Amino acid sequence: MGVRKRGFRERTPVEGALEILLSTAKPLGAEEVGLEKAYGRVLAEDLVSSMDLPPFPRAAMDGYAVRGEDTFGASQGSPALFKVTGEAAMGRPFEGTVGEFEAVKVMTGGPLPRGADAVVIFEQAREEDGTLEVYAPVAPGKNASPRGEDVKKGERVLQKGSRLRPQDVAIAAALGISCVPVSRRPRVGIISTGDELVEPGDRLAEGKIYEVNSYALASMVEMNGGLPERLGIVRDDYDEVKRAIEGALGYDLVLVSGATSVGEKDWVPEIVGDLGKVLVHGVAMRPGEPTGFGLVRGKMVFMLPGYPVASVVAFETFCRPYLQRLQGMEPCSPYPQTTATLRRKIASELGRRDFVRIRLERSGEGLFAEPIRVTGSGIVSSLVRADGFVIVPENTEGIEEGERVTVHLFKRC
Amino acid sequence: MGVRKRGFRERTPVEGALEILLSTAKPLGAEEVGLEKAYGRVLAEDLVSSMDLPPFPRAAMDGYAVRGEDTFGASQGSPALFKVTGEAAMGRPFEGTVGEFEAVKVMTGGPLPRGADAVVIFEQAREEDGTLEVYAPVAPGKNASPRGEDVKKGERVLQKGSRLRPQDVAIAAALGISCVPVSRRPRVGIISTGDELVEPGDRLAEGKIYEVNSYALASMVEMNGGLPERLGIVRDDYDEVKRAIEGALGYDLVLVSGATSVGEKDWVPEIVGDLGKVLVHGVAMRPGEPTGFGLVRGKMVFMLPGYPVASVVAFETFCRPYLQRLQGMEPCSPYPQTTATLRRKIASELGRRDFVRIRLERSGEGLFAEPIRVTGSGIVSSLVRADGFVIVPENTEGIEEGERVTVHLFKRC
Repeated sequence: MGVRKRGFRERTPVEGALEILLSTAKPLGAEEVGLEKAYGRVLAEDLVSSMDLPPFPRAAMDGYAVRGEDTFGASQGSPALFKVTGEAAMGRPFEGTVGEFEAVKVMTGGPLPRGADAVVIFEQAREEDGTLEVYAPVAPGKNASPRGEDVKKGERVLQKGSRLRPQDVAIAAALGISCVPVSRRPRVGIISTGDELVEPGDRLAEGKIYEVNSYALASMVEMNGGLPERLGIVRDDYDEVKRAIEGALGYDLVLVSGATSVGEKDWVPEIVGDLGKVLVHGVAMRPGEPTGFGLVRGKMVFMLPGYPVASVVAFETFCRPYLQRLQGMEPCSPYPQTTATLRRKIASELGRRDFVRIRLERSGEGLFAEPIRVTGSGIVSSLVRADGFVIVPENTEGIEEGERVTVHLFKRC
Repeated sequence: MGVRKRGFRERTPVEGALEILLSTAKPLGAEEVGLEKAYGRVLAEDLVSSMDLPPFPRAAMDGYAVRGEDTFGASQGSPALFKVTGEAAMGRPFEGTVGEFEAVKVMTGGPLPRGADAVVIFEQAREEDGTLEVYAPVAPGKNASPRGEDVKKGERVLQKGSRLRPQDVAIAAALGISCVPVSRRPRVGIISTGDELVEPGDRLAEGKIYEVNSYALASMVEMNGGLPERLGIVRDDYDEVKRAIEGALGYDLVLVSGATSVGEKDWVPEIVGDLGKVLVHGVAMRPGEPTGFGLVRGKMVFMLPGYPVASVVAFETFCRPYLQRLQGMEPCSPYPQTTATLRRKIASELGRRDFVRIRLERSGEGLFAEPIRVTGSGIVSSLVRADGFVIVPENTEGIEEGERVTVHLFKRC
């Protein structure tokens, strides 16, 4: 055996790989869920209102409903006089019509009686023996909400592909919608390969390490709306890994971590090729170079690196957008962004995308990003200590100290 | 009946109300969950490592493990010569010891054999017939990760009170932890009051509106780690509301919305006072002034406004921090922040805290926040259209156009 060049002969750029990947992703289809189970799900169809909201003109203040024009010219010295003809309680509208110089007592949010177009607030009026003195004019429309002010019939209130937030569930309720069509949650089978891996909780023999990736990946699947299932650890053996992958094809997609590089026992790409078609193997990114994916009997099988940090970065780069597409969403990062000044130079390589874990520090001069020093993508704790990450794009050999960078923030709570 | 001043005679400032509220909040206690169910839960105890990670010195590159000192002086013209004595596979460490001028083939992440302290990468060596030529010196420690580099035995890796993210679950797995102590999820009973309310899906009679708050509140409870239960709509009747509140005291806390102001049928504060003790009623905030809370038989009963937007703001201001405390967390906003320039003046009142829904617009000159024009806190769609909110603090009468403001961002995906 002589000197040999290691690694991938060819590496696909991230954008090219993503394009290949997403061109194959179709939404999984929809199901109806009750509104009480809709929070966090992804809307499968636009939500269009079939009613005006509010469904009637309503009082925006407590007071008396009147015809605004009847108050014109009213003042403290020369009040306008009205006959109080009734009261509208919440949910029990006033049955009659408000005529000339008539007033009906109303409460905020309650229906404005027919004929009335404005509300005189309590502070500008005085009722005695069924007669109301009004001390200031109110223009028609004043202190009243017109029918449909909130939402008009036929209006699209929520867009297909959006993940339902509390306020989205609220607007659906307000429009009387008790069931919503949502995308089916993708079921994800997760396989870890490696002779060195031991289940957490079991005894660790010499030279062995605990299995991390299936836990990290399952959590990220959940975070992105999928239903993960950990299918256990498989030994570094062609037949065993093949059997595991074939056994996982009932899921909507499969994540395999480990054995995806170009070494002797890196069976996964070979197996995916034997069972189906490898679409990408080797990506111009760091960490995560030994990432790939292929189609087997219509299911996408992701080949993720064995090193935990690389596996997490590969998930975020490829699996997360794919999962979102299966749910009918446009790919969308779950990490909020901020801007900071880089504290220390980051070296990279032209043509490669780097993901650099950083810590944030706020000082008098602003927010600073400090790259975390690690020996490689095996250091799991670096992801825990990091406040977020910086992406070094392909078109640069690095970022200089003092430059402004976009930081993608990990959640804090 | 004469002219009367409406509203609360006294309003508690937000900070004062929060202090009263949180002084009563104790963590609910812990339970053990399997690591596969730990994502999103709140850690109830510090997580301290009982092992070194990695548990052995390991190779950080593919290559040959050697004693670094034996390579000193090696060069292309005058290579150092080694005897290849074996190979360490993943999970199957080399059994012997690496002696003087001996080399053992290793793989990235695999254990470094005893005696060796560095790795010569393939590119700098050439093996033939059991002999290795090394063309460059490697310092002891080079291309190797020492035992405990990631986490040291006894190190605290995760702090009590933190919500477990994917990387936190990952580090627990890496340390062999299969069960974690997490705070019990608070069970929250949710009651909506109002004669005007109809369940979504039912027919809307004249003057009625659909019930919104229990859906919005249940979603926010879920978003913040609680287990919501919607207990239905209760009529505006003292006895019925009282019965509903008493019936909900089996939950860890109770949210009642509607009937919390100072009107005739605003029974909730009276009932909470009759059953227990009102701690705060009326808060110097907008929307959300008719907010309050009280203790009934040891359970906190939140009195939330009937108007949906006010109810949501009151939840975020009071119920969310309270729920976090019950889970042993420090109160922590789920809304990421950004900074923007205010497009239009916001008027407020000295001594009051205002929550203003805004839309963000990015133009050439930066990010701008445009307050949404609404007639009041009954406009549910304003929360859907908003990108986030701006808080106008108590010590100002408003914020001028052109000022820089902190925007609390609603989630997008």
